[in-house]
Amino acid sequence: MQKIDVYLTQSLINDDLFLKDKNVVVVDVLRATTTITVALSNGAREIIPAESVTIAARISKGLGKSLLCGERNGIIVEGFNLGNSPLEYSSEKIKDKSLIFSTTNGTLSITKSRLAKSCVLGSFVNLSKTVEHIKSLKEDVIMVCSGKLNTFCIEDAVCTGLIINSLLLYEEDKYELNDSAYACLRLGKLLATKIGKPSSEKILGMLKESEHGKYLTELGFGEDLKICSEIDSYPHLPVYCNGTIKLPEKIESETNQKSQLKKIKISK
Amino acid sequence: MQKIDVYLTQSLINDDLFLKDKNVVVVDVLRATTTITVALSNGAREIIPAESVTIAARISKGLGKSLLCGERNGIIVEGFNLGNSPLEYSSEKIKDKSLIFSTTNGTLSITKSRLAKSCVLGSFVNLSKTVEHIKSLKEDVIMVCSGKLNTFCIEDAVCTGLIINSLLLYEEDKYELNDSAYACLRLGKLLATKIGKPSSEKILGMLKESEHGKYLTELGFGEDLKICSEIDSYPHLPVYCNGTIKLPEKIESETNQKSQLKKIKISK
Repeated sequence: MQKIDVYLTQSLINDDLFLKDKNVVVVDVLRATTTITVALSNGAREIIPAESVTIAARISKGLGKSLLCGERNGIIVEGFNLGNSPLEYSSEKIKDKSLIFSTTNGTLSITKSRLAKSCVLGSFVNLSKTVEHIKSLKEDVIMVCSGKLNTFCIEDAVCTGLIINSLLLYEEDKYELNDSAYACLRLGKLLATKIGKPSSEKILGMLKESEHGKYLTELGFGEDLKICSEIDSYPHLPVYCNGTIKLPEKIESETNQKSQLKKIKISK
Repeated sequence: MQKIDVYLTQSLINDDLFLKDKNVVVVDVLRATTTITVALSNGAREIIPAESVTIAARISKGLGKSLLCGERNGIIVEGFNLGNSPLEYSSEKIKDKSLIFSTTNGTLSITKSRLAKSCVLGSFVNLSKTVEHIKSLKEDVIMVCSGKLNTFCIEDAVCTGLIINSLLLYEEDKYELNDSAYACLRLGKLLATKIGKPSSEKILGMLKESEHGKYLTELGFGEDLKICSEIDSYPHLPVYCNGTIKLPEKIESETNQKSQLKKIKISK
């Protein structure tokens, strides 16, 4: 049996060692895990999550040429280059750049996974990729719904539930769920079709009704909800490893380059 | 609009002043709010919740004739008179006695409400009474699901959801729900009948499948789940006020006695 334990907000994980050696999936639909997926899909070289604005500024100073990105309570941090809207992360702005990223909740969930065995970022835009990843792991998984300022967010729970629903679709007996995972599954099922995937329209409706969705709409980010609702529109899976977030394809090509370089050096 | 905000575990409330001047409903189906309802219905004079075993022992010393009650991780505290099984709280054992009560989660949720405007304890055994109370308040309410050791418990969410479902049944437009309240409602609806109340059998099935239900069954408390599942079997609503939990009927009769006594004194 593969155990799937869900935590309904990142604030429920308050022990630095809790995620050590675990396989973690972080979900922050509005908007961190969506925006990071969009940014990497659009060609960002890497994303370095930072717990605080101060840490972000410090990393930026040390790193040199990079972009400072993120928000507090939905609004871009003063002096930062980009906020947390996926619409800002176009190829022209970010291609091949290092982004230092600090948000109110999402980056906290991510950095809490720094000692994890593996950590990936899930959202509606890469739902199927996240499902494939968990299937391929064949090991227990902890799914962290980011939530918002210490409280539960329905959109993270529904996304987590739809991921679990897809996992269980043809292999119900393979997984063991904790109470939170079961609750997410039931909430996800309300929006799922018989073949698992929900319609993006239904997801958008749910986002519009959610507390955080309403808040973002008030701030003028209504268009973001549409991007965040589009199932599998960015079929890439960001991986958090050694302090940075990259796409596996990128990690692989870098490893190949390195070993190529090694070969050249040796043959010299 | 009457706002109903749910918190999915008591550990999400970590500011002592958060519940000040609020109307609070605490739910800890397995087993604190059930057992307290049973104990008061069976004639206990009052229940004094204590955050810790040490505090419980200190109160007991000061109070004299009283019973020490409670558990840690489901098991009676060494040296205590009673544990946290509703089956232990028979009339013969507890009639007219003061009970000092300390449990792993439930009493924490209760004592966190010490500055609340009002605080009542809900469970399946007094579901309709809890619904009536919230209706009569006509003010915003915070519902606290106790959870277990910092995590979510499905049974508290379902009970909270069924209470909300009953409230909304004929007056859907009167209430405004936060994301957690909406999630509980959806989970409750899965077990509700068209007229609102679920069958006790369905509730028992859910309790048996829940993480904490399974744990209690392993400890030999399987019979408790049945008691905890019986909808409206103890139609009394415990009220936490001035540090003690009593039934409103008891508070009223004591107030009457006091004013009677005052009258006698004055007329003397």
